[in-house]
Amino acid sequence: MKRRIVTLLTDFGTQDHYVASMKGVILGINSVCTLVDISHEVRPHDIREGALILANVYSCFPKGTIHLAVVDPGVGSSRKPILLITKDYFFLGPDNGLLGLAAEKDGVEKAIVVSNRGFFRPSISSTFHGRDIFAPVAGHLSAGIPPELLGRRVRSWVKLDLGEPKIVKKDLVGEISHIDVFGNIVTNISQQDLNRFAKKRAVVISIGRREIRGLRKGYWEAKKGELLALIGSGDFLEISVREGDAQKVLKSRRSDRVRIRLQT
Amino acid sequence: MKRRIVTLLTDFGTQDHYVASMKGVILGINSVCTLVDISHEVRPHDIREGALILANVYSCFPKGTIHLAVVDPGVGSSRKPILLITKDYFFLGPDNGLLGLAAEKDGVEKAIVVSNRGFFRPSISSTFHGRDIFAPVAGHLSAGIPPELLGRRVRSWVKLDLGEPKIVKKDLVGEISHIDVFGNIVTNISQQDLNRFAKKRAVVISIGRREIRGLRKGYWEAKKGELLALIGSGDFLEISVREGDAQKVLKSRRSDRVRIRLQT
Amino acid sequence: MKRRIVTLLTDFGTQDHYVASMKGVILGINSVCTLVDISHEVRPHDIREGALILANVYSCFPKGTIHLAVVDPGVGSSRKPILLITKDYFFLGPDNGLLGLAAEKDGVEKAIVVSNRGFFRPSISSTFHGRDIFAPVAGHLSAGIPPELLGRRVRSWVKLDLGEPKIVKKDLVGEISHIDVFGNIVTNISQQDLNRFAKKRAVVISIGRREIRGLRKGYWEAKKGELLALIGSGDFLEISVREGDAQKVLKSRRSDRVRIRLQT
Repeated sequence: MKRRIVTLLTDFGTQDHYVASMKGVILGINSVCTLVDISHEVRPHDIREGALILANVYSCFPKGTIHLAVVDPGVGSSRKPILLITKDYFFLGPDNGLLGLAAEKDGVEKAIVVSNRGFFRPSISSTFHGRDIFAPVAGHLSAGIPPELLGRRVRSWVKLDLGEPKIVKKDLVGEISHIDVFGNIVTNISQQDLNRFAKKRAVVISIGRREIRGLRKGYWEAKKGELLALIGSGDFLEISVREGDAQKVLKSRRSDRVRIRLQT
Repeated sequence: MKRRIVTLLTDFGTQDHYVASMKGVILGINSVCTLVDISHEVRPHDIREGALILANVYSCFPKGTIHLAVVDPGVGSSRKPILLITKDYFFLGPDNGLLGLAAEKDGVEKAIVVSNRGFFRPSISSTFHGRDIFAPVAGHLSAGIPPELLGRRVRSWVKLDLGEPKIVKKDLVGEISHIDVFGNIVTNISQQDLNRFAKKRAVVISIGRREIRGLRKGYWEAKKGELLALIGSGDFLEISVREGDAQKVLKSRRSDRVRIRLQT
Repeated sequence: MKRRIVTLLTDFGTQDHYVASMKGVILGINSVCTLVDISHEVRPHDIREGALILANVYSCFPKGTIHLAVVDPGVGSSRKPILLITKDYFFLGPDNGLLGLAAEKDGVEKAIVVSNRGFFRPSISSTFHGRDIFAPVAGHLSAGIPPELLGRRVRSWVKLDLGEPKIVKKDLVGEISHIDVFGNIVTNISQQDLNRFAKKRAVVISIGRREIRGLRKGYWEAKKGELLALIGSGDFLEISVREGDAQKVLKSRRSDRVRIRLQT
């Protein structure tokens, strides 16, 4: 038995028994693996949010980690269970766009449609493949079975349309992709996007009815309660309020537009 | 030391230090045991909800797992701490009906009233037996002490009245036992109850002011947003909305009645 | 590698990837350490609440446990990362008052300002020192590096003003320091404070517009629904309602005054 790490990301919440059921099944197959929760509070059926969380966190884990993710509105239908083997990790979950963002960042080396029922639970419910298919497969993977045994190799998988930022009338226009527990507003505009657009010139960020001039290096550059923009820990443009809650100040919602223009 | 698994189910929430206190005590006795959270978001003092969650999940874990459950409105009173040893598991908690549903499903082989203070913390608070009695006993059990040392054997334990479904004017009448994070409505009508009642004939399910004709095999058999009935992953009748929230659609609450009649 | 325990206390919530990022980093350095969550639901930026939770729980863990706590409104500013080595534990986090309450209770033997970038992540964001500084340092500590390598020793650290109870016109006046998930009201009046004040004479507790005569030994001494006062599991005076919610009954809020007078 190997002490591999298995991470879990779902939209199951932590009130019900669903997550624990998956953990019990994994430990029943490999009792020495290490289980780590990523999040179980992805909005129900929100594949996009799950994909973004996974993309932000996967690379913090050691090589060989198995990232098991189940946000699965199509459970029981014809959507396939898929394993994406990347340079350093395994990504296992439904083939619905949930895994690709992270896996493609790391570099997919092999994709396998998981179909070998010998690695599933004997009886498979139609509503809980997390417990009956994904958990046992993760358990067997963590125990070291060759991934090729799981099913046949494929060349493609479902892609997620994330809505990249675009140039509109000379401005760079993106949107809010996530708002965190502190009310920090995370956009889909990456540091790279900004560099390419601004080429080191100063920028003005418009969000709601407010304008923010320039980027800060950290919260400490602003006064307590001041609105500011910076590059967050995930390398995306974030709007924050120092020791405050930017979401409450701006009344922003996910998908709201964020516009960047060159300072004149 | 054994690498036994100890699961934890409580109504303590995860904001306060209560659950971590229990984990610290367990690890102080057996540093190599594996701790797995079932849920800590059981409604405060809701023994029935805790019992249902435990019954849904216990069997996913490997043989020898210790299921520690503390939903304990009578903490500090005369209610006894009890250990139910079943075919494959240990169930430890207050003797108030919390453990029986799961333990009896697995088959109780021995019941022990836990009274040996040598396995408790030296000082016992009147309000937190989770930390002072149940956690240390679970720690010692996971380390392999013979359960007989914990106290004397008894022949009975507190039973929970779950309100089984009944035949009323030729219909099968049950109730909502749980509503999960997706808004799926779980009833107390088991697949067995249904088979016995319908004997393979088609049924109509009444819930609130709505009627649902027939059972589906999985969500995929319904259209997006459609109300449907199926047998859930716990083998009970569930009412769902495909990629939606049945609770919101039906405005159902726990204990609401669900009525089943034969299709004519 | 040692199987040391690392506990985590933050205000990051469990919806985002933040906590999992820290865990991934720790496991990447020491794959065999045991991670235990204390709480991630400290109110955002509420150092005082974090300090109280840590002080309530740290001593339940075995000797040598590393308590990693990150409630860090000043992240990225000049506040220092600090390690407090106490009689039995390591306390690691920002030097902003978060650690002292617990560490001083255990007895601080050495304080080290953590500055050796060799134990940080190669690239350090300005907003997420939990992942980039504290997690890797905790990982290295758990793997057994000598703490002296982390930075230079200091003689002082930031203290927290907790507002101790005071004598006002012959009465003992304290305040509500915390309200737990059950609605139990925890005050900042310790058993010691009470003993010193009352010298075994009977007391009357005033909270809001209500008066409670005397202390109970446990919930069972009150009737269901009755308001009562007792010494809680953390050795502080608590106001509760048996099998009910004292916060809802009294409409109390944190920092509300609690007054104790001698019974006449």
